[in-house]
Order: sequence, then structure tokens, then C-alpha cells
Amino acid sequence: MKVGIVGLGLIGGSLALDLKASGFAKKVVGVDSDPENAAKALELGLVKEVRPFREAAAASDMLILAIPSGAIAGAVRGALDLAAPGATVTDMGSTKRGICAAAAGHPRRKQFVASHPMAGTEDSGPSAALRGLFAGKVAVICEAEKSGAAHVARVSAMYSALGMRLIRMKPGEHDLHAAYVSHLSHISSFVLANTVLAKETDETAIFDLAGGGFESTVRLAKSSPETWASIFLQNRANVLRAVEDYIEHLCDFHRAIRNGSGPEMKALMANANRIRPVLGAMRSGGKRRAAAGKKVGRGRKER
Amino acid sequence: MKVGIVGLGLIGGSLALDLKASGFAKKVVGVDSDPENAAKALELGLVKEVRPFREAAAASDMLILAIPSGAIAGAVRGALDLAAPGATVTDMGSTKRGICAAAAGHPRRKQFVASHPMAGTEDSGPSAALRGLFAGKVAVICEAEKSGAAHVARVSAMYSALGMRLIRMKPGEHDLHAAYVSHLSHISSFVLANTVLAKETDETAIFDLAGGGFESTVRLAKSSPETWASIFLQNRANVLRAVEDYIEHLCDFHRAIRNGSGPEMKALMANANRIRPVLGAMRSGGKRRAAAGKKVGRGRKER
Repeated sequence: MKVGIVGLGLIGGSLALDLKASGFAKKVVGVDSDPENAAKALELGLVKEVRPFREAAAASDMLILAIPSGAIAGAVRGALDLAAPGATVTDMGSTKRGICAAAAGHPRRKQFVASHPMAGTEDSGPSAALRGLFAGKVAVICEAEKSGAAHVARVSAMYSALGMRLIRMKPGEHDLHAAYVSHLSHISSFVLANTVLAKETDETAIFDLAGGGFESTVRLAKSSPETWASIFLQNRANVLRAVEDYIEHLCDFHRAIRNGSGPEMKALMANANRIRPVLGAMRSGGKRRAAAGKKVGRGRKER
Repeated sequence: MKVGIVGLGLIGGSLALDLKASGFAKKVVGVDSDPENAAKALELGLVKEVRPFREAAAASDMLILAIPSGAIAGAVRGALDLAAPGATVTDMGSTKRGICAAAAGHPRRKQFVASHPMAGTEDSGPSAALRGLFAGKVAVICEAEKSGAAHVARVSAMYSALGMRLIRMKPGEHDLHAAYVSHLSHISSFVLANTVLAKETDETAIFDLAGGGFESTVRLAKSSPETWASIFLQNRANVLRAVEDYIEHLCDFHRAIRNGSGPEMKALMANANRIRPVLGAMRSGGKRRAAAGKKVGRGRKER
């Protein structure tokens, strides 16, 4: 299959590597509006060919939009306009409501499959691309009922080739959960970095004392401002609500410390400790399910 | 050297393993007030012998207090009372002001070396003990001028045997920096877990969507309530201030999103991105310095 990938950053570049390696794509054509990125992707061998959007869209059996969320919402109708009649268009956007709304009612809506692979790192750009980024993780498909069955099957096959477990969600449901489970993590990390950098004007103290857990908690603060501004704008209401909830829980914690109350603090931390079995199940379950292969789609069904 | 380790959890247990393996300790005697922990430590082979505090203190050339911060503050004078005349007493406490204040003026103050290895994981108890936990990390010594030179040399040799880089700080300086760089990370993580668990009453969504960075950001939320309540109480004023700063930075971020302002958001995230070179330098520098070995003590000097 000829696959066109629009956006050759972390996600698009990693896709190019894995879709080629797995044999899912016979040929990959890249698109990137930034000439430097395009040159880098060629230099790194992520793709062998970079073409203008219009040409790649017309020549692909599957066109994958791997640009920032807001840019996808702006590009999806144009992609459907340009796509060949039997071709599939899908996207990697971290938000789904705005993108699905943008695609709604397009005469070729059935050719579009809205999706989101829950995978990434804090790095960005073509040089961040890596093999195996998606394996064992979950991919979400939204509004499958608005897509043609053959197109859903094709996108599902792509995610299976990447080693991902597939689930379905409504766009609004996806965006609400993503705000809490994914987007809020990034904000807490960006804000931790800003707080520590404002206080520690001499960075030696960070350097010296970061062994105690700071590094993993602040990891996401390295993430791309471009990508994340787009996500926060696309999912603004949910993200604002998630940040407000977080501030409330933070105030509970502050109050317990201010009261000097060991039992209050311990109760809050014991509650937080409940995340351990959830993550443990995720880790072992994710591996088990990915290994099972056939179990794809056994997650929550679209309600 | 005969080493007594009081508290056979993550830190004490890991110390027992590494001090024995490195040859620094010829014999390790463990102490744990919890009979289950003591039995587990023996079963796991962390120590071969567990004795009452009084006996271990009297029989050790070096007595290491590896119990929660507040408990160390409560135990340090008793440890000095019981220690043999030439013996060294040191501690692994994550806060230093309260502990140094507790030891102040003791007739045997010179036998005590206040210290803190900046290493740990989110796990706790004897079964969390692991080899190599300390290697390549930083250990802080406080108020070295109040300790006898021979005792400081002995503790320094211990940290060198563990592969750690040594720096000196004043207790108040240590506690202030630790509040921002270490303690605040834990709070942001505990609070992230509480926020997400309160929202996601059906844990399937966490399970499905946590691939996008949640897992590493929330890792510290698994940490021991017992250990951390003690740290927050011992470092209360600094920690409260750090949380208040964090809330302010969080409100800045919330405002930028509420304003729907891409440039405002990007500026905040670009600032947070400045953490990348700091962590990068830490990682490569930490390794380089640990390998250099001789460079121990080349960090910031006590001011």
C-alpha cells in the first residue's frame, strides 16, 4: 500500500519507520511544510521521498495526518477533497472533537477515520522518531460509524501492524478523558519546571538534588510548545476544568500540611497510592493484550 | 567495619546490600522496630542478623539511621548516647534542619554526621531494596564543621563506596532546595493521582489512555505515606511555600489557556523547556563525575 504521511515529526517519523518495517506500507511518501524538517527526515532515512501535500494526497492509498491537532482540523477537509476515490484518510490528532466536527458532512466523510494512538515521548521533530514507539499501547478510533467499513478495517490493520490495541470512543468522551489522563500530566510537568526554574536561578541545585524523583516528574516539560498549544486550544474547556480540579486537590494537600496533620496527609497519599494497581494492571495487561493480538477491539465499545 | 543500619526499608535495605558488596562493611547488623520488616529483611538476605537498637548501637563502628525524617530527629540523641566512643553515627534523612537541631549541643555531637543521599524509588519496605540505587547520584553532608574530621572522612568513604558524588550544604539551604526540587515533585504527583482517580471512577480510561506520559508523571504517587508525611512535617514551611509558588505558576498557565492565547501558552512552555539542558547536563555530568571518583566533594562548598 502507498502511504502518505503529512508531518514528519516524532509521530509521523516513527510511523514511517514502523509501517515500512512491518510491511504494511510498500511505499511511504512524506509531506512537511517545513523544508528543514523535510530535509532532516530524508537525511535520517525516515522517508525516501518528500512531496507537496497536493501530490502526496492524490497518490496515496492511505493518507495520514500527523501534524498538530489544530492544523489537522484545518486540513482534514482539504485532504478529503484531494484524496483518490478509494483512498483512506486518517489522523493522529491528540484531540478528536474539533477534528470530527471539521470533517462532518464532507461528501467523502466515509473515507475519513478519526483516530489517536496513545503514544509519544517528550521529544519532537524528525530526529525524535523511533522504532517501536507504538507497540503495546492503545489506539482510539472515534465515530467509526461515520466511516466506511473498509476504511475502518484498513486503519485497524495499520494499528495492528504497529502492535497496538484498538478501542472505540465518542470524540467528546475521548477529549474529556484525555484532558485528565494525558493533557493534565503535561501541564503539571510544565508548571513544575517553571516553578523550580523560577526559584533555582543557579541551576546547580537542580543538578545536584534532582536524583530524588524530579527527573521523571518533570520529563514532559521538555515537550513541544507548538504541539501542546494546539492541543490545549482544541480541548480548552476540558483542560480548564481538569486544571481547576487539580488546583482544588492541591489546596487539599496544602491544607493538610498547613494543619500539620499527619493523618490528613497520610489519607491523601494513601488515596493516591491507589494508582499503583491501576498502572500495574496497565503494564502487564497491555503486554498480555498486545501479545494476544487477536484481542484488538476488546476495550470499551463506543457508547 | 561493623555497620549497624536502623530501618530496613528501601534505603536501609539497599545500603545493606551495597555496603556489604563493596567491602565497606565487613558485617552489617540490622534494626527494625517492625517485626514483619525485620523478618522480611532476613528472608531476603539483606542482613544476616537483626538486633535491638540498643545492642546494635553499642556494637557498631558506624550506625546509620535510615528511618523516616521525624523519627531520626527523635532518635539521634539516643543513638549518640548509646554509640561506642569511637563510633560514627550518620543519617539518611530527607530533611536536615530538624535533625541537626535535635543533635545540636549533644556532648558527642562530633560523632554525628548529618547526611542525605539523593536517591530513591517510589517503592518502599525491605522488598524495595536494590543494588546500585545510589551509584552516580549526589549525597549531601550538612554541618560538617560540627562533626569530627575522622567521622566526616568515614561517612565520605562510605558514600564513595556507594559511587556517590559528595557535596556540602547548610541544613536550611538543603531543606529549601529539597522542597522545590524533590518534595514538590512528590506533591504534584500525589495530587495528579488524586485528581485523576476522583474523575475516572471507572479505571478503564486510565488503563487505556495512560500511554501518553501519565505513567512517568504519576510514578511518585506510589510513594510511602509514612515516609512522606514525616518529610512534609519536618520541612513544613518550605514545602508550603513551594506549593504556593506552584499554584501561582499553575494559575498563569490556566489564564493563558482561558485567554485562548497560543503565544502566551507557548511562552510558558518554552520557558519550561529550559529544563532540558539542565537534566541533560545532570545525566552526562553525573556519570562523568561518578566515574572520575576522585572528584568527590567538588560540588558546591558549604557557605
